[in-house]
Amino acid sequence: MMLGIDFESSTPIYLQLREQIVKGIATKRLAPGDSLPSVRQLASDLGINLHTVNKAYAMLKQEGFITLHRQKGAVINSPDSFKTSDEYLKQLCDDLEPMIFEALLRGINEQEFSIVCSDIFKKIGGEKS
Amino acid sequence: MMLGIDFESSTPIYLQLREQIVKGIATKRLAPGDSLPSVRQLASDLGINLHTVNKAYAMLKQEGFITLHRQKGAVINSPDSFKTSDEYLKQLCDDLEPMIFEALLRGINEQEFSIVCSDIFKKIGGEKS
Repeated sequence: MMLGIDFESSTPIYLQLREQIVKGIATKRLAPGDSLPSVRQLASDLGINLHTVNKAYAMLKQEGFITLHRQKGAVINSPDSFKTSDEYLKQLCDDLEPMIFEALLRGINEQEFSIVCSDIFKKIGGEKS
Repeated sequence: MMLGIDFESSTPIYLQLREQIVKGIATKRLAPGDSLPSVRQLASDLGINLHTVNKAYAMLKQEGFITLHRQKGAVINSPDSFKTSDEYLKQLCDDLEPMIFEALLRGINEQEFSIVCSDIFKKIGGEKS
């Protein structure tokens, strides 16, 4: 699976890496037991700092998506390890709230917002199958 | 309106500032014509870098939320200035997509996600009135 960085994006690089790996797991391009590139390798391939890759991997570990083995490196966990939690649900609300505030300001109502979400669910359904 | 920073958050400080100002406009605590604190004042009050405040204000200006006057400083625009645009809708999809990927991974389906969004719309409706 190819990982890429958008250096123009306002999203920090470590969060971009995290998002892509989460997307890889969701679309089954990364399966439980698969190894991610080593920190050194990925930093070198993408031309970014070791510390940035470390930060992404540490976050994914903290969230239960990967395990960091001393020898095998970063390995994708089984789905049981990242079931929903109260902590995650709170984070989801905290992330959605400012987006919904802005949507309302831009004149997008609840129904229109819901259609945007629904379209993304449909698109992802297509990518997964 | 009080602005505050969570130094523990994974969200960059300039984006936290931006989110709070957008929220202030959405909840009408900031009205068109209101002035924001000067860059120097806000940086000093929050104990952050001038450059960080500048970055937040530049982003808000770029998005049409504020105008930067040489004398009056940062002033909230009228709602006509931040109507929805194709660019915004694309950004909204780009922001929602990774969140929806993760929700699916965490075992949250479209209907459950929709309920989370709907609850936030209801909560905001309460804060606005």
